[in-house]
Amino acid sequence: MTLDDNWFTEICEEGGTAFSLQIKAKLHEERTAYQRIAIYETAQFGNLMVIDGFVMLSQRDNFFYHEMLAHPALFTHPRPRRVLIIGGGDCGTLREVLKHQDVEHVVQVEIDERVTRLAEEYFPELCESNGDPRAQLHFGDGIQWVAEAADGSVDIIIVDSTDPIGPAEGLFTEPFYRQCRRILTPEGILVQQSESPLLHMDIIAAMRNAMTAAGFHSVQTLHFPQCVYPSGWWSATMAGKALDLTSFREDAIMKKDFATRYYNPAIHRASLACPTFFEAALEQVQE
Amino acid sequence: MTLDDNWFTEICEEGGTAFSLQIKAKLHEERTAYQRIAIYETAQFGNLMVIDGFVMLSQRDNFFYHEMLAHPALFTHPRPRRVLIIGGGDCGTLREVLKHQDVEHVVQVEIDERVTRLAEEYFPELCESNGDPRAQLHFGDGIQWVAEAADGSVDIIIVDSTDPIGPAEGLFTEPFYRQCRRILTPEGILVQQSESPLLHMDIIAAMRNAMTAAGFHSVQTLHFPQCVYPSGWWSATMAGKALDLTSFREDAIMKKDFATRYYNPAIHRASLACPTFFEAALEQVQE
Repeated sequence: MTLDDNWFTEICEEGGTAFSLQIKAKLHEERTAYQRIAIYETAQFGNLMVIDGFVMLSQRDNFFYHEMLAHPALFTHPRPRRVLIIGGGDCGTLREVLKHQDVEHVVQVEIDERVTRLAEEYFPELCESNGDPRAQLHFGDGIQWVAEAADGSVDIIIVDSTDPIGPAEGLFTEPFYRQCRRILTPEGILVQQSESPLLHMDIIAAMRNAMTAAGFHSVQTLHFPQCVYPSGWWSATMAGKALDLTSFREDAIMKKDFATRYYNPAIHRASLACPTFFEAALEQVQE
Repeated sequence: MTLDDNWFTEICEEGGTAFSLQIKAKLHEERTAYQRIAIYETAQFGNLMVIDGFVMLSQRDNFFYHEMLAHPALFTHPRPRRVLIIGGGDCGTLREVLKHQDVEHVVQVEIDERVTRLAEEYFPELCESNGDPRAQLHFGDGIQWVAEAADGSVDIIIVDSTDPIGPAEGLFTEPFYRQCRRILTPEGILVQQSESPLLHMDIIAAMRNAMTAAGFHSVQTLHFPQCVYPSGWWSATMAGKALDLTSFREDAIMKKDFATRYYNPAIHRASLACPTFFEAALEQVQE
């Protein structure tokens, strides 16, 4: 079977796989100061944002990723008030964070303002909370922002970035994690998208080791489905400055006053479950 | 990005998605009495079996599916001794079942003997237990086999079939489930592959309703990653004749004398977790 011109295809070189979405129209394309952004209307997945040829999100299935980047960390922390999002320009993670009434202030530091402007136009539902007085949208370099932030000033840091190649590379390093740890409060949590457990075990292991080397007390990887990313299975990794990250505020989730489409207490617990090959791969790296 | 001739692509029409694997060579192709079978050598996923254009399995990632089709049901049943596999011609599920020393007898009823003969040649590791004296490979019609089996003669029925279109259609119906229930022992369990929770919620809901209508006491869907199937996220659905299926023999899993690559007690529990949209979709169907 071959695909005609009505498909967008992303090749995952390292996996020897490719994923394609059927396209109705290309809605927009531009080269920004940082990257090339394209927006497509798909046949079945709503609008699609692609950066430098890599799928960022679709309207149909972004809820898995955005919920899993926000809620596990926020319901693990005993009382998250100040949140920092690095990247996250499509504002889907920001929307999930702002659903928590305990949260008093969220700064989002996205390097490319055009990502957010295009999200406002083509993914308006993800940007519906951008006007929330608790939200501050800052466009600039996340690494610099963290380096200049005060010690112990943030409860949760969410790194919602592109892959660890190109502009986002510095966000996957021990020096960056060390700075994150410094600006976190004692019960603070860092959470970061961490690629596919099937295809990128090397990246996940390296990230976890770098987090530990940076002084974090505990590290937990969350697993979840993500159809539009390579292998259809994705992860986020949490690092706790002092918390152990295996328990969470289950009562608060049960009583939450907002809707989620994927996340609930059973899913939170399920996302922490570690496949046997995953455990073995981590042990091998540590040896 | 377009794919050249060195890729095998499967289009999922109903999802508007396609998944491709990079190919080194086509190793075999034939039309059997039932279907067209092709075997490829892929760049990164080992050998690949394709039936009528649909990916059946790859050497790299079949362990998710085969372990999840076998072990949750076998560790939920208090003492599974007699197992029936419908389909399963690649013998990967059979291998997992035979790892259980409690199992005394397994009959596999695959309609197309060529699937098994090609698996023996191109997926020899999956067929390594085919000579086990407890295993009986029967080539014929699974529906007929079940219809002719004695009441209460089987502890576990595993339906490891293709999609519910074409030859496997009859395996997703209430009359078939009624026959399965009849031949199961009182604590018996039926488990069946049940498509993608993201793309085929209609099929899953219909299967579950048909299982309940057939008189099964309880129904539980298991979720797991499966890179080579549409959406990269797959499911199996268990139906219990009398058991409730939410508890399982965790101690036995901890003490098992065989290796698994994905499955363990935490993964078993995780696979039972129900996404919020999944619960909502089932409620909607019931209303």
